[in-house]
Amino acid sequence: MTGVPEDPSSQPSSQPSSQPSSQPSSQPSSRPRIPRDRDDDYAAGPIRARQEFVREQTGTALEHVSSYSLDPATLPGNIENFLGVAQVPVGLAGPLLVDGEHAQGEFYVPLATTEGTLVASYSRGMKLCREAGGITTTVLDDRMQRAPVFSFDSAREARAFSDWLVEHFDEIAAAAQATTTSGRLLDIQRFPVSKLLYTRFNYTTGDAAGQNMTGKATFAACAWIKQHYPAELHFLLEGQFATDKKTSVVNMLHTRGKRVVAEITLPAALVEEQMHVSTDKLYAARMRGQLGSIMSVTNNNGNHSANGITAMFIATGQDVANVAESSALYGFSELLPNGDFYASVTLPSLIVATYGGGTGLATQRECLELLGCYGSGKVLKLAEIVAATVLAGELSLGSAVVAEEWVQAHDDLGRNRP
Amino acid sequence: MTGVPEDPSSQPSSQPSSQPSSQPSSQPSSRPRIPRDRDDDYAAGPIRARQEFVREQTGTALEHVSSYSLDPATLPGNIENFLGVAQVPVGLAGPLLVDGEHAQGEFYVPLATTEGTLVASYSRGMKLCREAGGITTTVLDDRMQRAPVFSFDSAREARAFSDWLVEHFDEIAAAAQATTTSGRLLDIQRFPVSKLLYTRFNYTTGDAAGQNMTGKATFAACAWIKQHYPAELHFLLEGQFATDKKTSVVNMLHTRGKRVVAEITLPAALVEEQMHVSTDKLYAARMRGQLGSIMSVTNNNGNHSANGITAMFIATGQDVANVAESSALYGFSELLPNGDFYASVTLPSLIVATYGGGTGLATQRECLELLGCYGSGKVLKLAEIVAATVLAGELSLGSAVVAEEWVQAHDDLGRNRP
Amino acid sequence: MTGVPEDPSSQPSSQPSSQPSSQPSSQPSSRPRIPRDRDDDYAAGPIRARQEFVREQTGTALEHVSSYSLDPATLPGNIENFLGVAQVPVGLAGPLLVDGEHAQGEFYVPLATTEGTLVASYSRGMKLCREAGGITTTVLDDRMQRAPVFSFDSAREARAFSDWLVEHFDEIAAAAQATTTSGRLLDIQRFPVSKLLYTRFNYTTGDAAGQNMTGKATFAACAWIKQHYPAELHFLLEGQFATDKKTSVVNMLHTRGKRVVAEITLPAALVEEQMHVSTDKLYAARMRGQLGSIMSVTNNNGNHSANGITAMFIATGQDVANVAESSALYGFSELLPNGDFYASVTLPSLIVATYGGGTGLATQRECLELLGCYGSGKVLKLAEIVAATVLAGELSLGSAVVAEEWVQAHDDLGRNRP
Amino acid sequence: MTGVPEDPSSQPSSQPSSQPSSQPSSQPSSRPRIPRDRDDDYAAGPIRARQEFVREQTGTALEHVSSYSLDPATLPGNIENFLGVAQVPVGLAGPLLVDGEHAQGEFYVPLATTEGTLVASYSRGMKLCREAGGITTTVLDDRMQRAPVFSFDSAREARAFSDWLVEHFDEIAAAAQATTTSGRLLDIQRFPVSKLLYTRFNYTTGDAAGQNMTGKATFAACAWIKQHYPAELHFLLEGQFATDKKTSVVNMLHTRGKRVVAEITLPAALVEEQMHVSTDKLYAARMRGQLGSIMSVTNNNGNHSANGITAMFIATGQDVANVAESSALYGFSELLPNGDFYASVTLPSLIVATYGGGTGLATQRECLELLGCYGSGKVLKLAEIVAATVLAGELSLGSAVVAEEWVQAHDDLGRNRP
Repeated sequence: MTGVPEDPSSQPSSQPSSQPSSQPSSQPSSRPRIPRDRDDDYAAGPIRARQEFVREQTGTALEHVSSYSLDPATLPGNIENFLGVAQVPVGLAGPLLVDGEHAQGEFYVPLATTEGTLVASYSRGMKLCREAGGITTTVLDDRMQRAPVFSFDSAREARAFSDWLVEHFDEIAAAAQATTTSGRLLDIQRFPVSKLLYTRFNYTTGDAAGQNMTGKATFAACAWIKQHYPAELHFLLEGQFATDKKTSVVNMLHTRGKRVVAEITLPAALVEEQMHVSTDKLYAARMRGQLGSIMSVTNNNGNHSANGITAMFIATGQDVANVAESSALYGFSELLPNGDFYASVTLPSLIVATYGGGTGLATQRECLELLGCYGSGKVLKLAEIVAATVLAGELSLGSAVVAEEWVQAHDDLGRNRP
Repeated sequence: MTGVPEDPSSQPSSQPSSQPSSQPSSQPSSRPRIPRDRDDDYAAGPIRARQEFVREQTGTALEHVSSYSLDPATLPGNIENFLGVAQVPVGLAGPLLVDGEHAQGEFYVPLATTEGTLVASYSRGMKLCREAGGITTTVLDDRMQRAPVFSFDSAREARAFSDWLVEHFDEIAAAAQATTTSGRLLDIQRFPVSKLLYTRFNYTTGDAAGQNMTGKATFAACAWIKQHYPAELHFLLEGQFATDKKTSVVNMLHTRGKRVVAEITLPAALVEEQMHVSTDKLYAARMRGQLGSIMSVTNNNGNHSANGITAMFIATGQDVANVAESSALYGFSELLPNGDFYASVTLPSLIVATYGGGTGLATQRECLELLGCYGSGKVLKLAEIVAATVLAGELSLGSAVVAEEWVQAHDDLGRNRP
Repeated sequence: MTGVPEDPSSQPSSQPSSQPSSQPSSQPSSRPRIPRDRDDDYAAGPIRARQEFVREQTGTALEHVSSYSLDPATLPGNIENFLGVAQVPVGLAGPLLVDGEHAQGEFYVPLATTEGTLVASYSRGMKLCREAGGITTTVLDDRMQRAPVFSFDSAREARAFSDWLVEHFDEIAAAAQATTTSGRLLDIQRFPVSKLLYTRFNYTTGDAAGQNMTGKATFAACAWIKQHYPAELHFLLEGQFATDKKTSVVNMLHTRGKRVVAEITLPAALVEEQMHVSTDKLYAARMRGQLGSIMSVTNNNGNHSANGITAMFIATGQDVANVAESSALYGFSELLPNGDFYASVTLPSLIVATYGGGTGLATQRECLELLGCYGSGKVLKLAEIVAATVLAGELSLGSAVVAEEWVQAHDDLGRNRP
Repeated sequence: MTGVPEDPSSQPSSQPSSQPSSQPSSQPSSRPRIPRDRDDDYAAGPIRARQEFVREQTGTALEHVSSYSLDPATLPGNIENFLGVAQVPVGLAGPLLVDGEHAQGEFYVPLATTEGTLVASYSRGMKLCREAGGITTTVLDDRMQRAPVFSFDSAREARAFSDWLVEHFDEIAAAAQATTTSGRLLDIQRFPVSKLLYTRFNYTTGDAAGQNMTGKATFAACAWIKQHYPAELHFLLEGQFATDKKTSVVNMLHTRGKRVVAEITLPAALVEEQMHVSTDKLYAARMRGQLGSIMSVTNNNGNHSANGITAMFIATGQDVANVAESSALYGFSELLPNGDFYASVTLPSLIVATYGGGTGLATQRECLELLGCYGSGKVLKLAEIVAATVLAGELSLGSAVVAEEWVQAHDDLGRNRP
């Protein structure tokens, strides 16, 4: 029911580590199964057994993967077949000056990455924005969805069902909401095609990202529907219309997670002084980039939102796979008559949480706390900080691309790693 | 010149930690700047200074972020303002049976994630595929690009330049390749529009992901072009036609990184036995998902490639922001006359490296070694393993969605976390 | 206010033919202006004057363009600077057996085209469908829109306005509907981004296509809004979110004009007998075409809906430029367990009228009458016939492509025109 | 082999009008078949028989449809079951001042439409552009394609075939070109996915649109390939990668038909005087429209290219269904430092002909002659005139939308037709 539904038969605990696979097919597996412990797979023993197993099977010692300070007892619900950790370096950027409705003031932003210059580049953008008076952030929408598709024998039957859904919305909402304390069903969008009805069940989900919550609630709603609809009903809980972990136009139009704007007006002189570019050159470059975005058909007419978002997601325990959709971006800029530069980014499908998922793990929680974003009632604050970080990064890279034209090639060529 | 170009003025070492900012604008920064050390910012002192600074400024102790086994001396080129690490749990999936041209045999796959059931779900798909005889993988293409846009006063001038580029390809390639030992300029694609010429400089880049290499080489090429073109020339090194860190149709059509296929034919009986679904139901569901993908307009007509790719990318030191584009997927399946199920995924823009970037860091290198993919000559092997992992995950989740229709709601509702 | 707003100063009647242009710029026009008559530009005199003018200026006699039976007195509101007519050949296809909710029975379909084999190909598909029991058609939705964009100084102001719109919907609807007897404002969709609010004012428009009606009504609504909104307001009547005369995802998702489905189940033996292909080959071809559609990123995963739609639009006096969006198509097919073939097309943005525009002109009205679709209350019937025609054409061409593989090349090569 | 392949069994002449259908299915057709004459279906007799038939079957007299001056003997190859004509009013716009490489001077442009104000609006734009010194046009590319897809048992076999195609290009080109005197195979683009290879065979096609020519040539090429490839080969002549009659990203990127640019720089004072808008307002509106285009995901970030293109296509005997793809447009504008306005349109998939298809029919030929575009060697001239017309129309409507904000609502409301 999550993005990664589990099947009872695949539960680690259902397969004792000592017992060989029944091998129902004729394709014998030449390598042994991974050790597990059905009683407590997160205890020191089975973890060590797996590390030892890796050493035996692959010759890799896992000296560093085995080094961690987190308590494995905190991991059920976050990982199976736990082996150790990836140590991803965290750098600190900022301070980032945010004038949000939920985030107010200056923030130091932890960025987990292995991409050299990323932290420096974002810091540089944050400095520019700070000196311009800070970034204004606004959350425009907040909704998470699950998208069942219902199949019928004809378009007319699908249409009749669509009408029935509208008539019974209150009861369906009640069934959905019985499964959750924090989720609320806002509406059901309906997209009929052929003999099928694609839907989007849209929810608010409190401080959780909500993919599991909405999956569970929608499954309950569908169970109620199936029971009460006066005709036979076939459905799939997901018809690829919520495009979980996949970017899509429908999510960009209609919001998945938070829809957040970050905006700023940069004085021309400040841009010239800090970024060594004139705002009219910056604008001309942006217009060329925008046409490039249109022709290449991308989900993002900006520069590199994925860099900052990914680094914040790893640091703060977000579901990093959501970068696929959370990095979608609408950029809009204006060159003002006085030469100042208005810049904005709108993130239409930013999926963040300050509760659940990986947010409570050891380092992840610390990074959320560093931002003042751990726990209840903080998720919109986090969304605003992410959006402001993205805008700072857009301005930094956007300026660097323009300034490079005038840089001597040789100076530049030496300083990058292959 | 990388995805995150750096500007000399933003280099950490250029700004001594003790010296206050010159504060050219009237917006005073109320919070202090992050401590740095211009001599060796990766020494224990400045790292500890930043940790202490965070504690003072935010009240967060960073007990776990400060706990790591990696050697900070390995970090220059990967992170600035290093503070500590994110500990991301790694689970082990597999064995995954791959019949590739570069990856041969069974692999245990390290997945770094905080998303519960992800490892279990992928393992379940790997078991299914193993018992079906393994996954066949094929690398179809390999190219990395940088995409300068050239601006002129009229369409005719742009067209003349386009012709000139073709005539001088060999010299341009020589200029580009002078900057790199492993990169080779394959061709220059040209997309004229208005008075602009958008280009894509396509390279092979050996075992590196190559974004920096191609940036440097293309900058050198553009310097040569600017010097030799018999008229004035304005260009931007990136016209948003390589869409680095952004998914795009042009990259899906023309490949960015590796274009890899993973394919398998699953016996109907095996699917029924392992996944508790019939292949015709599985196929019908896939067709509905595909239409949903078309209508929602996504870069991925599969289920959740981003999950497996992200988890492998974090574990193995890839540039995780590339998930935005690497998770793009073309799925193609067939229900064979005998009921067996042919399934394939094509990843058209998978960006992986076994050299450079984060691949040499402590835990990341161990995870690459675990896969037998560390170092020179291994990048296509890694690409094949990623593609096979993705296919296993697609089949696991795809089956689970179908099987859920028949599951009793109540049994299901209890087992997920909010 | 229509797709082609007129400006008072550009009205033909405002510029007497005898008076020379004031020529404010220094670029003298070397060729004379087109003759007009400010009193009655549709009288025989000015028409003949223009024909004579063409002969003098270009040497073209216009023998055929000048031959028409329509009465020019019917043309005001349809054309300016009337010169004569294009004679587009009309062929008759059918009978087409339709089981619709508005179209019932067999129809002979007039197709205006110069594309050889088009009528034959559609007729062949209609024969197949007739023998399979006819095509079922269903109208799923009906809405026409105008899409103003409102600009503010910040995202928060845009958001506040968006809320205000919701609160004042009834008054806005009243203002809009005061301009029309047949139009009704259904809802206002809102898509916030940056400091802008893009909207879609969705209407039902009776038997008219409704682009003018919705333009006029929305202009009135915006006038009311501007007058009553307690802050300054800047808007454009069209923010390219209704994408008039342009296909778009938003229109395909949310309907522009009629959303119509045509569906049929074809017996395997009938397909084999009539089309000389097996249904499994037909289905395999369709799956390849669908993947091709996904990769090429088209607005239409079918074959050639534009052919039938264009030919019907020219014949029946529709606004033919709407083919750009009306030809968008979602195809969905299934190979049934018994080998029969379920086929459907969904036209999500079919813009048709049986009143207004060109529907009342001489030949156009006759062709509508031939279909029993002229005048009030007929528009959904026409939409159903168009959709059924499209489906017939899809099956005909789809089959032909498959059958061609087995055709001897030489037989085939002789029979087409270059 | 054309967009609308014909099957021998569906040929009108093969089914004598007097002989009843064999009615193989049990669904009896209740309405009679359309009369045909196997000997000469374009003679007066069968035409009159069909007109009479329509009168009997539908009660529609077809007084006007039956009135035409064209000679039906010219129609074989253009229409089947000829019944009469649609009389589409033609208006004259212009003069249009073009500074092209193929079109030079002032042109009067025939526009066939029933959309009131269209001719006036285009004329107004042409006047503006004429006074600004005329429109510069440039043809950037010229290619027509057919796109076979080849199916294999595995991705590796598909890749091997792809390599083989490259090695045998010369022989394949020879086989293709043996079928045509004017077509030339430029290259074969290859897009591998799964176990399939999608291709695009790109040709130049002289003055013909070339869809039939490329179909025939590619069929011959595939026949040669099938005969010589050393393994079994399955292909479909069209894999939906040429997207004939459908707009697509691949066609916009890589050109289908002509890729033409029209560009102009408008003095600020002239725009103000003629269009009653300032260029900065015009530019601000365009930027909002562009973002609307990005969000709505359209194939056209302009205003209404389909209007002008359709009207010219009907008038000049083009295949009007191609409007679906020919109306695709990339717009690019700049507000220059002095306030002047640079505007351009690029039509990336404009399909036009001055030979073949409907270009030789009675009124169609006259309209081509009026433009000086009939016959051999004229197709690029026609392409340039179409592009210039489109640009004029863009500027006219774009200005009108902006000016309307300031118009009194009541003045405006009276003047449009419902």
